[in-house]
Amino acid sequence: MTSVIVLNGGSSSGKSGIARCLQALLPGPWLALGVDTLIAAMPAAMRESAAGIEITGDGAVHIGPEFRRLEDAWVAGVAAMARAGARIIVDDVFLGGATSQQRWRIALAGLDVLWVGVRCAGPVAAGREVARGDRAGGMAVAQAEAVHQGVVYDLEVDTTHTEALACARRISGVVVDGDLVGDR
Amino acid sequence: MTSVIVLNGGSSSGKSGIARCLQALLPGPWLALGVDTLIAAMPAAMRESAAGIEITGDGAVHIGPEFRRLEDAWVAGVAAMARAGARIIVDDVFLGGATSQQRWRIALAGLDVLWVGVRCAGPVAAGREVARGDRAGGMAVAQAEAVHQGVVYDLEVDTTHTEALACARRISGVVVDGDLVGDR
Amino acid sequence: MTSVIVLNGGSSSGKSGIARCLQALLPGPWLALGVDTLIAAMPAAMRESAAGIEITGDGAVHIGPEFRRLEDAWVAGVAAMARAGARIIVDDVFLGGATSQQRWRIALAGLDVLWVGVRCAGPVAAGREVARGDRAGGMAVAQAEAVHQGVVYDLEVDTTHTEALACARRISGVVVDGDLVGDR
Amino acid sequence: MTSVIVLNGGSSSGKSGIARCLQALLPGPWLALGVDTLIAAMPAAMRESAAGIEITGDGAVHIGPEFRRLEDAWVAGVAAMARAGARIIVDDVFLGGATSQQRWRIALAGLDVLWVGVRCAGPVAAGREVARGDRAGGMAVAQAEAVHQGVVYDLEVDTTHTEALACARRISGVVVDGDLVGDR
Repeated sequence: MTSVIVLNGGSSSGKSGIARCLQALLPGPWLALGVDTLIAAMPAAMRESAAGIEITGDGAVHIGPEFRRLEDAWVAGVAAMARAGARIIVDDVFLGGATSQQRWRIALAGLDVLWVGVRCAGPVAAGREVARGDRAGGMAVAQAEAVHQGVVYDLEVDTTHTEALACARRISGVVVDGDLVGDR
Repeated sequence: MTSVIVLNGGSSSGKSGIARCLQALLPGPWLALGVDTLIAAMPAAMRESAAGIEITGDGAVHIGPEFRRLEDAWVAGVAAMARAGARIIVDDVFLGGATSQQRWRIALAGLDVLWVGVRCAGPVAAGREVARGDRAGGMAVAQAEAVHQGVVYDLEVDTTHTEALACARRISGVVVDGDLVGDR
Repeated sequence: MTSVIVLNGGSSSGKSGIARCLQALLPGPWLALGVDTLIAAMPAAMRESAAGIEITGDGAVHIGPEFRRLEDAWVAGVAAMARAGARIIVDDVFLGGATSQQRWRIALAGLDVLWVGVRCAGPVAAGREVARGDRAGGMAVAQAEAVHQGVVYDLEVDTTHTEALACARRISGVVVDGDLVGDR
Repeated sequence: MTSVIVLNGGSSSGKSGIARCLQALLPGPWLALGVDTLIAAMPAAMRESAAGIEITGDGAVHIGPEFRRLEDAWVAGVAAMARAGARIIVDDVFLGGATSQQRWRIALAGLDVLWVGVRCAGPVAAGREVARGDRAGGMAVAQAEAVHQGVVYDLEVDTTHTEALACARRISGVVVDGDLVGDR
């Protein structure tokens, strides 16, 4: 039975829209937890410091050691929620590509996980960044390809020309009533 | 010189994304003011009352007399801002179709206004409503066609298959350096 | 009949809480519009630029020429809303002290305005800034006294030891049923 | 070494302000996670349903079985984050009083927890509810006393006449450098 759906994609690729659609489509309640939840839980001072997160002018994101330590604990805790019976949609940005996936993979060991890549062409994601009114641009393009490097998926969706709801339908077609359906 | 761009479209049709893209594309600063700004300025009690706004289970929006009175003053004030020299992108939902346009037309008399229809196929707008996590659904479909009834535009864009930024580029191509360009 | 209540006070002095309480207490609907509404309507790029707003490390706020021009139009428009029949609570930060008041005074000429000073001891306002999780601190202390320089009020309230609702009750006692009551 | 600070108090008692002040005061980074984080992670449909949360006209909060199940997993996960090395400020509303505390106590077994009661006189909390512009009032008064029934604390603070930052200073005086200081 699928316990965890991990959505990985760059900034403005449409992950959280897909997560909300999945919550509406899937039978039973699923929690949607993302890296944005973690960042909102951190001290304000860490959101702009070398120890926490720094975003440079070109949209590159630098993660400091304290952020990394809190993130490790966060990943362990989300895994524990799934082990305690919650079904969870994780929405993350694998800044480290395959290394990031490996960290989640170890934490989620023994759970039935569906790995989903959320792609979006860089220029389209960059346009959506402008449409959201984000001040610091550049993240969308910087991350569009990099976060997928070496990552292995059960399923990939692409929001460049497909709506979030349609992407979520494809994903939910694989997760039916808690059981993976079809070939993986 | 264009002073005011009026974007009219149903809920979840993508008006505010287009407005933010226009602010990024157009030379000089433009203010983006929408019906959401007005609603946020109203007393909390009016957001759910017969005198203010009521949204029924099927997504129909009912506007009460007090809302109407405040909206009249709001429209007059936005027009005055434009007359005082601000360039303004208005983002509205013409629940009354042609009647709503007429109200703005009278208030904006003497100003150079660009009327833009923002269309989105009902089912697609409804999907975006789900992706945004709106609890009360139904507005997107209910408004998709109705708000355009009898309204006359200088330009229409359709976000069903076109990104907000591309729609904004088409609009900004008509408003160049403050001067309307080409035939209207 | 009082048409406009202007609340002037430094950052984190409690103006918007008082405005919401006034909306709940006063008979009839009042619109609450503040400098935050204006800033939210501006292009994202202007929120951090020399032409728009710049906030330095010590919490000082620098307003550029384009911000000033849009603000002039905004003030004119808010006055026009009041002339068109809306009753309005304005929530502002008079960075220019008496000069800022004079600008509003001219725009609101002929309207019955209640000028309210919202004071809060600098260290207390600074503590509330921390409690709100604002990243850029310092504004509360920098503005606590400066924004009241040379400003003339009908009424002053102090949130240092008084709750927003109690402050709003004092104000609403002066604005009863749209008529100023008692001596001013 | 204190790993977890649990702040329990009614709606509008000032818990999250205290949590943010604690994050600013305490050495090292602390995560602030609250029941609001959990609710935001739930499907939109559960936020207004008998299976999830229902808030009646008088401000009473009814928790359904599905909410309860997700909350159990959430509590287990937060405890796991603390065991994995994160230091956490939990902000909760013990609707079940001592029973709610017992649930956390079991989950946090073996960790050094500081239990803090956050009190606020009902009428004052109700006033702050109005100042925040909450539409559904009544929760503040309904919960002011009830959530403390039978709960045992290491420390109690009262925001009725004391600022969040001052309350946080008292708490941080007990949690110094990760070690409980003084008598408990």
